[in-house]
Amino acid sequence: MSEQGFVVTPWEVTGVVDYERLIRDFGTQPISDKLGRRLEKVLGSASYLIRRRIFFSHRDLDLILDDYDHGRGFFLYTGRGPSGPMHIGHILSFYFTKWLQDKFQVNVYIQITDDEKFLEEKRNLSYQDTQNWAKENILDIIAAGFDPDRTFILQDTEFLGHAYPLVLKVARRINFSVVRAVFGFTNETNVGMLFYPSIQIIPSFLEKKRCLIPSAIDQDPYWRIQRDVAAPLGYQKAAAIHSKFLPPLTGFQDKMSSSKPETAIFLSDDDNTVRNKVYRYAFSGGQATIEEHRKLGGNPDIDVPFQWLYMFFEPGDSPIERIRADYRSGRMLTGELKDILIERITTFLHEHRARREKAADLVETFKREGALARTIWEMDFRDR
Amino acid sequence: MSEQGFVVTPWEVTGVVDYERLIRDFGTQPISDKLGRRLEKVLGSASYLIRRRIFFSHRDLDLILDDYDHGRGFFLYTGRGPSGPMHIGHILSFYFTKWLQDKFQVNVYIQITDDEKFLEEKRNLSYQDTQNWAKENILDIIAAGFDPDRTFILQDTEFLGHAYPLVLKVARRINFSVVRAVFGFTNETNVGMLFYPSIQIIPSFLEKKRCLIPSAIDQDPYWRIQRDVAAPLGYQKAAAIHSKFLPPLTGFQDKMSSSKPETAIFLSDDDNTVRNKVYRYAFSGGQATIEEHRKLGGNPDIDVPFQWLYMFFEPGDSPIERIRADYRSGRMLTGELKDILIERITTFLHEHRARREKAADLVETFKREGALARTIWEMDFRDR
Repeated sequence: MSEQGFVVTPWEVTGVVDYERLIRDFGTQPISDKLGRRLEKVLGSASYLIRRRIFFSHRDLDLILDDYDHGRGFFLYTGRGPSGPMHIGHILSFYFTKWLQDKFQVNVYIQITDDEKFLEEKRNLSYQDTQNWAKENILDIIAAGFDPDRTFILQDTEFLGHAYPLVLKVARRINFSVVRAVFGFTNETNVGMLFYPSIQIIPSFLEKKRCLIPSAIDQDPYWRIQRDVAAPLGYQKAAAIHSKFLPPLTGFQDKMSSSKPETAIFLSDDDNTVRNKVYRYAFSGGQATIEEHRKLGGNPDIDVPFQWLYMFFEPGDSPIERIRADYRSGRMLTGELKDILIERITTFLHEHRARREKAADLVETFKREGALARTIWEMDFRDR
Repeated sequence: MSEQGFVVTPWEVTGVVDYERLIRDFGTQPISDKLGRRLEKVLGSASYLIRRRIFFSHRDLDLILDDYDHGRGFFLYTGRGPSGPMHIGHILSFYFTKWLQDKFQVNVYIQITDDEKFLEEKRNLSYQDTQNWAKENILDIIAAGFDPDRTFILQDTEFLGHAYPLVLKVARRINFSVVRAVFGFTNETNVGMLFYPSIQIIPSFLEKKRCLIPSAIDQDPYWRIQRDVAAPLGYQKAAAIHSKFLPPLTGFQDKMSSSKPETAIFLSDDDNTVRNKVYRYAFSGGQATIEEHRKLGGNPDIDVPFQWLYMFFEPGDSPIERIRADYRSGRMLTGELKDILIERITTFLHEHRARREKAADLVETFKREGALARTIWEMDFRDR
């Protein structure tokens, strides 16, 4: 991998990601000004994620908005691989998806890919590990505030059997050449992983409407396959909207990793831990001394605390631009910038965890008993 | 394929099968005289299938008999791919398995591989086709007379979800290189087929005892994989006992095929159809005219009516040897030999169909409500 090189696959993100090149390599579309404005109009308070191009790339988002405008509707699908505790980087997509649900009033399907995380050999998780993390992660996902009657959380190991006829129909249309080309699978890849793409694209077929998938861009290879098999199976090609990765606390290299706690703020981190991590590890674009900083100013483009505020924690355009200007000019010191971030993160985590406290009572609703969950469990997949 | 060439895979049997070469190629063991006698002793009336080496090859059959002798017990597993109507060749293994159950008083697992038959592209069966054939085939299987409380019929599309945790554990241990080498899969093979071997070997893990699999030898490649993954998963290597193929009515080339009705007697064929097929299509080792036949005699080795009697329909050693001698000497004419076979087949089919009439009431017992079925459905596969 060259110095400018980077790798983005569903199982690996290394290097410094060049998002423009990803758009070219993956064959997706940048969100144009016109398309961005169409979406911002509906999103209102959540529109900053589009305006700032934190969600920066898409497939067929224009068709989704057409479907919405013409009353045909659409639905949302996103997911989580339960391989460890969730951090700030993981939860961003879920909050965004929840905001999309609020604004568009649509159904959301959330897939918990516990089977994939077990099959992924290098993780070496026991089956029970994946079940424990699924349980924990689902509480965090519910805490994002989804509508219990319009949201179905499907955990693969529980749901696969029910949808198996449809999974088979999908699997019959994907061969080894395809998964090798799309995912870089090899002769040594286990047959569970080879089969797994047929499972990951199932939620996009749970309704005959068009599906919009908000996810980090590393998941896009699955949607490429979905778009190839959808039409012959009588479904619509999934649309997607891709987010950038919130950079690791330690700088723009690679992505936040649960196995390197210093790179991430976990949703369970207490106030002290948050404060210590940001102070100690957050990569700063500031100068070495206060004197130099006052004189030369900081560089917000490489400053992780600034980027986290920009990408998630400061929705207001005037405040964020004020921070940017103050920091660049040297009026705002690194410590002051970090304090702002710490305050935002701890407030966010307090609110998140307060909702998480109540989430346990809602698990059965989202998985089985809510209106949407019931509809899907009552569906006969032999006919689909 | 050379003139002496033949192909035996789970999806194709062509040419004239050389069973001795299969034993070498597949790396199985011939049933030795000593081992044969051990098994015959328990089997009693059903022992002719061993004595005549219709079941001719095995893996670890000696260990199964040791387990039986020492009170450790074992269990049986066999299956059926529901791709069409069942014929005489299909049902032989089931009757043999039922006789093994009767004599050894052991549990039997019968897998209905409707998923595989759907995934097998060249068959081009709709999902509904596989479901309809599964329903029909199960009635024929039940008609063989299995013990409802010691037999569990598991239909993959119904059972897969329940056993999915165990399927995943198996799938993680099988890679593309393995299924390519064992089954000849290619880059164009669909990912469902690549994954499927993890499903076919699941029934061998339903008990911690040793499993004995009676089946035609074309299924052996699956048991090779089973034997590689069993120990690391904490199970025993499956034992197997392999049958020859009942030759097609039309002669020893290829195998009976549902798509060529003249090659097979279906379990649903009425008396007239049986008579017409045997008279018209059964390959004869007799001479062209009665005069020549009286003078030269017939050749029972290539005569399909004789072989069918020998392989299944005439259990008595004295009667079959009398028929052989009479036919070889010319005392018995081709028409007389065919009449014997017709009488045996029609009697067998009448009895089979009488039991099949009552089978519909037993389907739920074998699939869900029988003692063994209930035990398995109540099993928690997350712990296995």
